[in-house]
Amino acid sequence: MLLDATASGLFPIAPTPFHPDGRIDEASVNTLIERYLAAGATGVTVLGIMGEAPKLEPEESLAITSRFIDGFGKLPVIVGVSAPGFAAMRSLARQVMEKGAAGVMIAPPPALRTDDQITGYYRQAVEAIGTDVPFVIQDYPLTLTVQMTPKVIRQIVEENPSCVMLKHEDWPGLEKISTLRKFQAEGSLRPISILTGNGALFLDFEMERGADGAMTGYAFPEMLGDVVRLQKEGKRDEAHDLFDAHLPLVRYEQQQGVGLATRKYVLMKRGFIASDAQRKPGAALTDAARAEIDYLLARLARHDPRARI
Amino acid sequence: MLLDATASGLFPIAPTPFHPDGRIDEASVNTLIERYLAAGATGVTVLGIMGEAPKLEPEESLAITSRFIDGFGKLPVIVGVSAPGFAAMRSLARQVMEKGAAGVMIAPPPALRTDDQITGYYRQAVEAIGTDVPFVIQDYPLTLTVQMTPKVIRQIVEENPSCVMLKHEDWPGLEKISTLRKFQAEGSLRPISILTGNGALFLDFEMERGADGAMTGYAFPEMLGDVVRLQKEGKRDEAHDLFDAHLPLVRYEQQQGVGLATRKYVLMKRGFIASDAQRKPGAALTDAARAEIDYLLARLARHDPRARI
Amino acid sequence: MLLDATASGLFPIAPTPFHPDGRIDEASVNTLIERYLAAGATGVTVLGIMGEAPKLEPEESLAITSRFIDGFGKLPVIVGVSAPGFAAMRSLARQVMEKGAAGVMIAPPPALRTDDQITGYYRQAVEAIGTDVPFVIQDYPLTLTVQMTPKVIRQIVEENPSCVMLKHEDWPGLEKISTLRKFQAEGSLRPISILTGNGALFLDFEMERGADGAMTGYAFPEMLGDVVRLQKEGKRDEAHDLFDAHLPLVRYEQQQGVGLATRKYVLMKRGFIASDAQRKPGAALTDAARAEIDYLLARLARHDPRARI
Amino acid sequence: MLLDATASGLFPIAPTPFHPDGRIDEASVNTLIERYLAAGATGVTVLGIMGEAPKLEPEESLAITSRFIDGFGKLPVIVGVSAPGFAAMRSLARQVMEKGAAGVMIAPPPALRTDDQITGYYRQAVEAIGTDVPFVIQDYPLTLTVQMTPKVIRQIVEENPSCVMLKHEDWPGLEKISTLRKFQAEGSLRPISILTGNGALFLDFEMERGADGAMTGYAFPEMLGDVVRLQKEGKRDEAHDLFDAHLPLVRYEQQQGVGLATRKYVLMKRGFIASDAQRKPGAALTDAARAEIDYLLARLARHDPRARI
Repeated sequence: MLLDATASGLFPIAPTPFHPDGRIDEASVNTLIERYLAAGATGVTVLGIMGEAPKLEPEESLAITSRFIDGFGKLPVIVGVSAPGFAAMRSLARQVMEKGAAGVMIAPPPALRTDDQITGYYRQAVEAIGTDVPFVIQDYPLTLTVQMTPKVIRQIVEENPSCVMLKHEDWPGLEKISTLRKFQAEGSLRPISILTGNGALFLDFEMERGADGAMTGYAFPEMLGDVVRLQKEGKRDEAHDLFDAHLPLVRYEQQQGVGLATRKYVLMKRGFIASDAQRKPGAALTDAARAEIDYLLARLARHDPRARI
Repeated sequence: MLLDATASGLFPIAPTPFHPDGRIDEASVNTLIERYLAAGATGVTVLGIMGEAPKLEPEESLAITSRFIDGFGKLPVIVGVSAPGFAAMRSLARQVMEKGAAGVMIAPPPALRTDDQITGYYRQAVEAIGTDVPFVIQDYPLTLTVQMTPKVIRQIVEENPSCVMLKHEDWPGLEKISTLRKFQAEGSLRPISILTGNGALFLDFEMERGADGAMTGYAFPEMLGDVVRLQKEGKRDEAHDLFDAHLPLVRYEQQQGVGLATRKYVLMKRGFIASDAQRKPGAALTDAARAEIDYLLARLARHDPRARI
Repeated sequence: MLLDATASGLFPIAPTPFHPDGRIDEASVNTLIERYLAAGATGVTVLGIMGEAPKLEPEESLAITSRFIDGFGKLPVIVGVSAPGFAAMRSLARQVMEKGAAGVMIAPPPALRTDDQITGYYRQAVEAIGTDVPFVIQDYPLTLTVQMTPKVIRQIVEENPSCVMLKHEDWPGLEKISTLRKFQAEGSLRPISILTGNGALFLDFEMERGADGAMTGYAFPEMLGDVVRLQKEGKRDEAHDLFDAHLPLVRYEQQQGVGLATRKYVLMKRGFIASDAQRKPGAALTDAARAEIDYLLARLARHDPRARI
Repeated sequence: MLLDATASGLFPIAPTPFHPDGRIDEASVNTLIERYLAAGATGVTVLGIMGEAPKLEPEESLAITSRFIDGFGKLPVIVGVSAPGFAAMRSLARQVMEKGAAGVMIAPPPALRTDDQITGYYRQAVEAIGTDVPFVIQDYPLTLTVQMTPKVIRQIVEENPSCVMLKHEDWPGLEKISTLRKFQAEGSLRPISILTGNGALFLDFEMERGADGAMTGYAFPEMLGDVVRLQKEGKRDEAHDLFDAHLPLVRYEQQQGVGLATRKYVLMKRGFIASDAQRKPGAALTDAARAEIDYLLARLARHDPRARI
């Protein structure tokens, strides 16, 4: 089933679990899938920035994707296909779609500056992967350095019917969600799904501004799913209470570089993966950092029993 | 009295209060000074990035600085003197030191890349302002795009005896504090003061890693002062409890661009300044944003009565 | 007399001559003016990037500007007023216009990325300096990192009636000139003057694409004036012959950083200025570099007797 | 035979010839090889930035590499293996070395800033590809935005015995060659080969500063070879005479983006390749640009009969 503009809920960004010797830990992939589904995931995204995709051999990337597609059954699997050239992007996109992926995610290359360069890039990318492949725009200026205005996003959506979703992780970004939803209310933008990332640092308010859900890799996907659900049910205070309890750890995890190490460490402690190993090159946690995370988990456990480890 | 390496505690980054018509609001400057002192400020920093310094005429900059120097009495006033050229930097530095400033703060210009370029820049800056003017290194890659390793900071400190403080706002930055303190423990770096900024997003742990205090403009300077004090007294849990209660607002305020509008809005609601006006160009808050901040304040007031407005 | 869209010919970018001890060399300013006028200058630009403007005290900037205004009589003097804040920009713009400047030149700050940010910046700048001050857009991505498409330039021109000129120094940039002239032929862009910079590296073809003249600081302004004139007279081969003879030196001078040192060295050897001193910080020529320039001058002298020194 | 520090002479950067329909033009690869050898090439570099490498499928990259290895016989073939991840870099490096490549070239990714980041990256890259694979540092800040000081290059060379060559294309860069050669004269840097790129814009003087040869793709490789040879024979004026005759075209070709289109157009006119087609996305020449290049060729033919077409 292909991804479409009605996608919502919780799409975890999956890490790639490794054994300490660097081999892919397939058993942990299976555990991850179980846990994500138990947490209420409505889909999943693999081979994203936090999935250590550039460290994988092509056949490994395909194998992991297939395993997630099998495990998620009818739920959509989105595959990151960003690449420095369109040949590699097309090749990966065609292969994963054949295997049953629901769509692909494309981040703009860092050199893009002007509005025309950005919209031109997405036209060329769609020409490369084919207009039959649903795709997600990744809008992440903090890491990618490319700045897309709401007008530019609208133009990409309007020019490319296969664009069905925005992965929103601009920062600050609340007004961007409001502006895009206003475009739609005015009729100048067709419906698209907006899932938010940026480590969930603003998920509480993003839902209130009109986001459809979360697409990020915070090590407690249950919290993401709960906040999305509570906000949709109108339980605003409850949503914020839960979010605020997690915010000290959310904030800690959302550090460039060391963030993935933090995430894998917590996922390991929670039994989602067997080891927090990263393939080289990867930032390791110091003893001081591990002690800080343990302290944050202990404090969190007072409010959320799922943090009791 | 000149700034030296023993500086610690709470140095608020002062905003510049304006009347809605754009004139400087001198009465609010006085109120700010009173409130900062009541909050336990041990110094203050003016004409920083958040002080709208580039929007001030030279005589206005000097007048505000003088007013803070008068109001803070024997407590040190640090003045931001970053400028695209050394002529303007020297001129401002000499003038504010004559008026009684304790030292100046210098941020590197965005074009600097290599270690040699950065250390060379600080040598030239010191030559320009004079070796008798104590100065603070501002290390803020998120905004300035210049990345300084601990070794580069050490070299700047060792080459320039007038360097007495690091305004640390790297992100992630906890390991940087630990590394610099380790350099000192090993004897390869002389003592310097480390105050942390970056909107206080990591103040809780920065104190535990060895920071001497906070230098940032969060709209509740009392919280900053309390966390610094509690950590120094060894009351770790109390420090984190207070910090965590504020973190949702700290996080909201620490957004590029809209952050200053948030800060001034809260300071206005708290009676620190009469108006939240910014000089042009300035990002305004939408109604939605104001409502979000009000909601955050109401939630915060449950834990910290100072947020009851 | 104010600058308007009919400006053309040769506008040298004037360096600021210093004595070896760092004082401004006013006698050399006078010599520069004489030589520029003798070379056929139809105007001049002061306080540009190559004029070491950030190293000047405000009163020095005004004094130099006044001297050029006096010396150039009825010919237009353009003053660079780019600044990190609008207060300084407005202040300098108002002062130089009062002294008789013909217009000002404004470069975008390096942080601008999206089309909206760039056009918004120029709207704010015009609000700051006043709509009665004619201004020049400086489009120099190689140094400023800001990329403006022809559409963005058109929007700035259309939104701001006081915009009368483009200083074109994009690289590659020939198609940009053609596109802007096509906009005008189609009626979607009102007339503006286009003078080209970038060290004259493409002046030969820029004239053929529709430029009105040269605005750059190459140490042989006579060559710039001659190429502009020959191209306007339809003497294409002659224009290229002269240009090609100078190209090895043009190329050498158009190096970031060391370029100004090269330019001042040649101007000194040619008697335009008494010393090639730069104020600190400035890149010095090595002995090897000086020998290379001398060799290039000797080779040039075989084709252009003005290089015989 | 493996690449070593004695490499010198002319290493053309080979473009990838395509048929107008996008297929690789293998006959033109053979012609290119013949012409390069006839021009005196002492080696060749494939899959570089100008080889449209990111547009090739992996098997295509290997096929082209093999064809060059066969064609060049005992002369060394260097393969560009820069990639966003070490998995792809290792994989390509191992495969081409098995096929008989002499070494690989590695450019740093654009995000690198500090000296430690750059030297750390090369250590990790060598760990990935293996210490038995000779490699070339590509130092090209204009395109890659990474700035390496001579000290950083020295550290990379000293830390990694498999580093045998610097592809020097910093700009300005003459002093960098002199500094590296001075390091070697002082004994603080072991011998490495320095070949220069940057479109040959400074090849004339780079040879005088100590370069061992040229590694760039200018459409007249014969000129590159001749200038290298003449300079080595001490025929300085002859070298400059030839270089200067070509400089107008060298300058035209060394434009970002449109440069490759220019190069392929000239190579096609010269019979090196059958078509100037690029795979998408690629910048096309306008009629005006083609006419300019034709004019430059006609002018060049007066001095160098090889430009008569």
